[in-house]
Amino acid sequence: MYSEIEALAEGLTEKLMGIRRDFHKFAESGWFEMRTASLIARRLTEMGFEVLAGSDVCLAESRMGLPDEDELEEHYARAKEQGADPQFLPRIKGGFTGVLGILRCGEGPTVALRFDIDALGVNEDKTADHRPFKEGFSSVNPGMMHACGHDGHAAIGLGVAEVLMAVKDELRGTVKIIFQPAEEGVRGAKSIVDKGHLDGVDYVLACHITGRSTQEDRVSDTTAGCGGSLATSKMDALFYGKSAHAGGSPEDGRNALAAAGTALQNLLAIPRNSASDTRVNVGTLQGGSGRNVIPEFAKMELEVRGKTTAGNIYMEQWAQRIIKASAEMHDCTYEVKKMGEAFLMESDLPLMERIAKVCRENLKTVRIHPQLRRESTGSEDFSYMMKRVQDQGGQASMLRILTDTAAVAHNSRFDFNDRDALPKAVKVLSAVVYDILSEGPVKN
Amino acid sequence: MYSEIEALAEGLTEKLMGIRRDFHKFAESGWFEMRTASLIARRLTEMGFEVLAGSDVCLAESRMGLPDEDELEEHYARAKEQGADPQFLPRIKGGFTGVLGILRCGEGPTVALRFDIDALGVNEDKTADHRPFKEGFSSVNPGMMHACGHDGHAAIGLGVAEVLMAVKDELRGTVKIIFQPAEEGVRGAKSIVDKGHLDGVDYVLACHITGRSTQEDRVSDTTAGCGGSLATSKMDALFYGKSAHAGGSPEDGRNALAAAGTALQNLLAIPRNSASDTRVNVGTLQGGSGRNVIPEFAKMELEVRGKTTAGNIYMEQWAQRIIKASAEMHDCTYEVKKMGEAFLMESDLPLMERIAKVCRENLKTVRIHPQLRRESTGSEDFSYMMKRVQDQGGQASMLRILTDTAAVAHNSRFDFNDRDALPKAVKVLSAVVYDILSEGPVKN
Amino acid sequence: MYSEIEALAEGLTEKLMGIRRDFHKFAESGWFEMRTASLIARRLTEMGFEVLAGSDVCLAESRMGLPDEDELEEHYARAKEQGADPQFLPRIKGGFTGVLGILRCGEGPTVALRFDIDALGVNEDKTADHRPFKEGFSSVNPGMMHACGHDGHAAIGLGVAEVLMAVKDELRGTVKIIFQPAEEGVRGAKSIVDKGHLDGVDYVLACHITGRSTQEDRVSDTTAGCGGSLATSKMDALFYGKSAHAGGSPEDGRNALAAAGTALQNLLAIPRNSASDTRVNVGTLQGGSGRNVIPEFAKMELEVRGKTTAGNIYMEQWAQRIIKASAEMHDCTYEVKKMGEAFLMESDLPLMERIAKVCRENLKTVRIHPQLRRESTGSEDFSYMMKRVQDQGGQASMLRILTDTAAVAHNSRFDFNDRDALPKAVKVLSAVVYDILSEGPVKN
Amino acid sequence: MYSEIEALAEGLTEKLMGIRRDFHKFAESGWFEMRTASLIARRLTEMGFEVLAGSDVCLAESRMGLPDEDELEEHYARAKEQGADPQFLPRIKGGFTGVLGILRCGEGPTVALRFDIDALGVNEDKTADHRPFKEGFSSVNPGMMHACGHDGHAAIGLGVAEVLMAVKDELRGTVKIIFQPAEEGVRGAKSIVDKGHLDGVDYVLACHITGRSTQEDRVSDTTAGCGGSLATSKMDALFYGKSAHAGGSPEDGRNALAAAGTALQNLLAIPRNSASDTRVNVGTLQGGSGRNVIPEFAKMELEVRGKTTAGNIYMEQWAQRIIKASAEMHDCTYEVKKMGEAFLMESDLPLMERIAKVCRENLKTVRIHPQLRRESTGSEDFSYMMKRVQDQGGQASMLRILTDTAAVAHNSRFDFNDRDALPKAVKVLSAVVYDILSEGPVKN
Repeated sequence: MYSEIEALAEGLTEKLMGIRRDFHKFAESGWFEMRTASLIARRLTEMGFEVLAGSDVCLAESRMGLPDEDELEEHYARAKEQGADPQFLPRIKGGFTGVLGILRCGEGPTVALRFDIDALGVNEDKTADHRPFKEGFSSVNPGMMHACGHDGHAAIGLGVAEVLMAVKDELRGTVKIIFQPAEEGVRGAKSIVDKGHLDGVDYVLACHITGRSTQEDRVSDTTAGCGGSLATSKMDALFYGKSAHAGGSPEDGRNALAAAGTALQNLLAIPRNSASDTRVNVGTLQGGSGRNVIPEFAKMELEVRGKTTAGNIYMEQWAQRIIKASAEMHDCTYEVKKMGEAFLMESDLPLMERIAKVCRENLKTVRIHPQLRRESTGSEDFSYMMKRVQDQGGQASMLRILTDTAAVAHNSRFDFNDRDALPKAVKVLSAVVYDILSEGPVKN
Repeated sequence: MYSEIEALAEGLTEKLMGIRRDFHKFAESGWFEMRTASLIARRLTEMGFEVLAGSDVCLAESRMGLPDEDELEEHYARAKEQGADPQFLPRIKGGFTGVLGILRCGEGPTVALRFDIDALGVNEDKTADHRPFKEGFSSVNPGMMHACGHDGHAAIGLGVAEVLMAVKDELRGTVKIIFQPAEEGVRGAKSIVDKGHLDGVDYVLACHITGRSTQEDRVSDTTAGCGGSLATSKMDALFYGKSAHAGGSPEDGRNALAAAGTALQNLLAIPRNSASDTRVNVGTLQGGSGRNVIPEFAKMELEVRGKTTAGNIYMEQWAQRIIKASAEMHDCTYEVKKMGEAFLMESDLPLMERIAKVCRENLKTVRIHPQLRRESTGSEDFSYMMKRVQDQGGQASMLRILTDTAAVAHNSRFDFNDRDALPKAVKVLSAVVYDILSEGPVKN
Repeated sequence: MYSEIEALAEGLTEKLMGIRRDFHKFAESGWFEMRTASLIARRLTEMGFEVLAGSDVCLAESRMGLPDEDELEEHYARAKEQGADPQFLPRIKGGFTGVLGILRCGEGPTVALRFDIDALGVNEDKTADHRPFKEGFSSVNPGMMHACGHDGHAAIGLGVAEVLMAVKDELRGTVKIIFQPAEEGVRGAKSIVDKGHLDGVDYVLACHITGRSTQEDRVSDTTAGCGGSLATSKMDALFYGKSAHAGGSPEDGRNALAAAGTALQNLLAIPRNSASDTRVNVGTLQGGSGRNVIPEFAKMELEVRGKTTAGNIYMEQWAQRIIKASAEMHDCTYEVKKMGEAFLMESDLPLMERIAKVCRENLKTVRIHPQLRRESTGSEDFSYMMKRVQDQGGQASMLRILTDTAAVAHNSRFDFNDRDALPKAVKVLSAVVYDILSEGPVKN
Repeated sequence: MYSEIEALAEGLTEKLMGIRRDFHKFAESGWFEMRTASLIARRLTEMGFEVLAGSDVCLAESRMGLPDEDELEEHYARAKEQGADPQFLPRIKGGFTGVLGILRCGEGPTVALRFDIDALGVNEDKTADHRPFKEGFSSVNPGMMHACGHDGHAAIGLGVAEVLMAVKDELRGTVKIIFQPAEEGVRGAKSIVDKGHLDGVDYVLACHITGRSTQEDRVSDTTAGCGGSLATSKMDALFYGKSAHAGGSPEDGRNALAAAGTALQNLLAIPRNSASDTRVNVGTLQGGSGRNVIPEFAKMELEVRGKTTAGNIYMEQWAQRIIKASAEMHDCTYEVKKMGEAFLMESDLPLMERIAKVCRENLKTVRIHPQLRRESTGSEDFSYMMKRVQDQGGQASMLRILTDTAAVAHNSRFDFNDRDALPKAVKVLSAVVYDILSEGPVKN
């Protein structure tokens, strides 16, 4: 059966490359993935999946960092024009860009797979030696680019869907294939978890296309899991003051920018924590309306991180207190909006061992990394899904699909070897799901 | 002769209102006044003035706060489309929007009059009870509005030109009528002064349309002069650092926003000065590119002011030192760009007395304010021209044309009684010029 | 009668110089003036005044900036040892160092005179060319020196008392001679005002020995009044946090010094006020206990000032808000203690004119300054008494006794020409009191 | 032989307790250990050691954090009065309080042992249940207390000296017993290293009396070594400005406290470092002279730390840059004085294994801790000596002598079980030296 899976995946290579490059060309950033999501929903429907879309997938009030109505409207029109599926598009409207395909195969465990589908806020490189440009599939959407491989993840998800549908008679249990919006900024997963789609899930898997950096990476195709990320909270702080003429009557103003400046200095100085490595960044600050006007408004985008969840909470509480006091000091009002959040991401050892065993014993063309738990940096909102499943006693893992890349992630020249990465990701994920669902639950 | 001047001015009322409303409708902010300036040049030429335009009026390198090339290009196209004069427009291209009309009448003193012509960066109100909207002459250019009366000043300048041309046989000396761009932000006067147009000028006059606020104002049509403004310097500070991933390797960054934040806090805390009332404002601050990136860039627009020129210099030197040290502290580089500057504005007493005398003794329809030197607030770059003339031993005055206004200056609902203000400004200015040039120089 | 007063004052010269030099030698700073006050009370009693001392003069809870019990105890012992009057000393104990001498002469207005008696926290110069040292009357009390002339004021008060007692049969009304403690730091006057001693007073006078700085000063002996001082509030801010090992567990600390540092930066940046010149100074800051301990305590001594009382209140409210928010930001607690306060000090014109008239018409040896209202800088808590009297419809003035000084006030080498200043101050004050009480109330 | 060593040490118990309690009673903090050092030198001399003292031990210019001359003078007098040895005291004068005893036993390796002898700046508890007070040996010197066990270390050093002298015929090589001043604040070791006393040393050992905190501690008497400390730099920053009257002419001041405040805020905000855990603390700040004076001076005591030496250097360079820029921003001058420094402290594995083996195989009464390398917190300037020896290819270890303590180190109620700790420390150190010198060098 495993070799059948390998063959099926191999056979999908050209098709998945086509899908990936189409998604790449029409890159859509978080909550704007209307064309992408509608086409995924269309394909899953055609394959025979039970398909959920729109507000059936994402809980409205749990969507973090949602753009404003005008922008959503504008991108709705763009998506329509760029060939979104007319049946699904209306359901996706208004920032409901998650899609869920369900395959029910009788009694047995439930396995969820998550694929993130959003692009980044980057302008793609347009020089001749950048392959996507040379081969005609670079992004046509200004300020939006798949520079983190989520176009590949979406294609892999459709590939896994197709393989599992083909072998469904061998499966006992349920498969949920989740296409998640707005992973960048760790904004989207919470809305799917809060909608309840991870409740009752026994195993949850995700993968991330990753460049090779070490000697061990260079002889490996996938890792069994990962560890080492930081918990993080993303916040916007808004300060509201009162304008006044800076020459004529400065005493009548309430200086929102001065409040933000006080907050900035103190945020960067949150005391170090001996129990947890921490981070803080005020990534952007914008304030004021004119040179000679006391600034009545300022906005900062900030984030904190912690090596432990407690360390992250420590930072977030400090940040909240600093922002509040800075506003009050300058007689301003303020808001803090939670824009994203991720937990630590630690793959479960028994599941990692199972994945490694599948690769080593059953698959001929997928080499497993010698380190089960390869460290990852950064933060991932798949951690929300992992936490829900782990809290229920289930198991979770994030696999790194190792391949050659043209530049580091988030760079405007990022590209990856899709001919290599896509089929092998489909192989390992499909094989692991088959392994679980053909045998019944792992005994922990 | 004075009653002839009054009659001539009276007769121009409808025409000047038409000109003012046309300029109002096609409002153009600083250095973009290409339509306005080209039409002024055209009219002066038709009247018989010797006309200078373009780089003959403004010294290129002395123009402060000039927009970038792309914007100038874009507004050139707009001006063309909105009916700029085709002969003068090409000479005005690239931010050379000053115009100078000269009338030579033999031996005698030189009198310069300055009229500013730029609009503000304001979106004009579009509600039914805002007269310019109701009567169809509100601004059609988004983000540009004549909310400070410079549309009126431009019309007054053309009115004075017409009156003086009509009485030129009675004059002995030279009249220079200067139409100045970019007064808002105190950016434009310096380029005209540096070009030499105020050299050898014996008297320089300007006027400003001003709402009435006191009982004395309500029974007056003009003031003889003004005093009490603040000297000011406008600066942009740019901080350049180095980006880095805020979670992965914050130590590799050079935080330009942290540098700006340190500068902000210390700028607001420049010590008070017992010898001069002072002001400081960081009107805008923008920095950073993304929440999880150490900010590599920040820009602030700031201004300082002083009740005395020394007080303003004190503030500017402090600001320079703070910005430099803040950048160095955070291992960043920086630039400070001077964006505007104005001196104190003190009208000369003999000239004020002469103006008052002309009104009291010669004009029947212009009531002079009982306070010769009515205090004004804010800063004015006419001060550049005054200073040049005063430094040469000449005399200068800024008259306030008092009339009814619909809202305070700089407000999106600003409007003024043009039927009242325009002819009376033409009367007083023309009469004062006549008074000077018909008699020869004042004996100081 | 005026020439009799002049002669009486003249005759007291040696005696007053002796008193002044004794007080100078045993200089006592604010609330420690136990020797000084007890000897004043003794002398007034001997002259025949009705004498109030101790808690009959100062309202206990209105004494600002009172030292702690231990210090008061220590200085009690010192004063005793240095020859304090044994009868009055016990009543003065515990920081009740005000003395009031009353002379009742039947029906008529009440005139109060105030003399401040405290020294400064300065170590007196001990070099050979400093006259007090050379002549053996420099301060024997470390850290306490009469560097502002209050030793002279105390002597003048006793001289006036003696002169008025001598002419009491010519007076109709009441004289109150107030010897006030703790003027430095503007701490003492309030306690006397709050005790009610200025209630019902028609005129209140004070004098200050002042060095000559202008040409006009050099031909004058006294001014009729003064103006131009700043209102001020003096505060101590105390921040309480929690210590922790800075290497081992910084996250357990609450950094009181960080709170104070945030307050410091923001206090210096309180917005300028177009309606009132203002000042702010954090004069001292002390915090922390050791290099490797998160600071659990910090204390700052600060002051604000305003050209108007409203301007001072504006500053004080800002300061209060900043201190509160800084403490809360850093999870610390705090206290703000009001340590002193003074109002504006504007002498009343009719009274100044009366003083000038007395000098010009009646006194042969006291030259009045040509400017009635000579500007003074700094703040004075005599302003408390002036305000109370003025609020009741009475009149007040602070005279400047002009003489030669060896250094600027508050300097460790300060000294003044006591042979010149003391008798002439006695003359003018006695003469003005006589003028008022021999005639009855001024008709305002 | 080992049992002979154990018996010798056991026999010294009462004597060492006496010495320790004498040193405890006459506690002397860093560079003031004149009585202590002179008595040590006396005892070593009497035992037959070659003894170096004074400037033969410490390089003058490498002594960090030296008190000023007056204080050294004052403590010289105190030490003399408290029974310092009259022969050695003069050589120790002026802050040269290191002592070195050398025992030469022919060819063989050189082993150095270091014992620190200084007290802390703490006032010892004087309540009845504090044993040193109850038993009459609490500190008689205000503000100086042995709250970190260095009194015990000094006694142990003398005990080891006596035991090794007793067995010297069995040794081949050289023993250097170093009594080091000023370990607190990590100030003293550098001066001994720079004098060259660690050059050519093959092994260096030290011990620290430590309370038991874990279950493993409770069944152990010593550890073989340690790890996990932080590298650290201690600095004083001094800011020099210019005073001015805060009301009269604030613009004339140069505010040293404002400079320090800017430095404070930015020091606490030095960016976190992903490559090294770091710390920063401004432990004390003192500035200004009076409420109404622009502060002309401020001083801060600060420290930085790093989990790696590079991390510590990163922090120190940031601190230097911040202090410099803060001073320049406020037109002040500044100094940064290095007051102490310590490196990481990592014991060498072969030496730790040797120590463990000696305890397990040869000693009957000293139980070795199961973890060879028990983590320590804080910083130690023994690290200077370790680094010198390790850089030469030698080996180093710091042993923790585990015993019961009355309070945590640095607390005013600290005490330890000297009857237990002293002999067992002498046993293990003497035995290890014997083990090395009876066999010749370890083969690494």
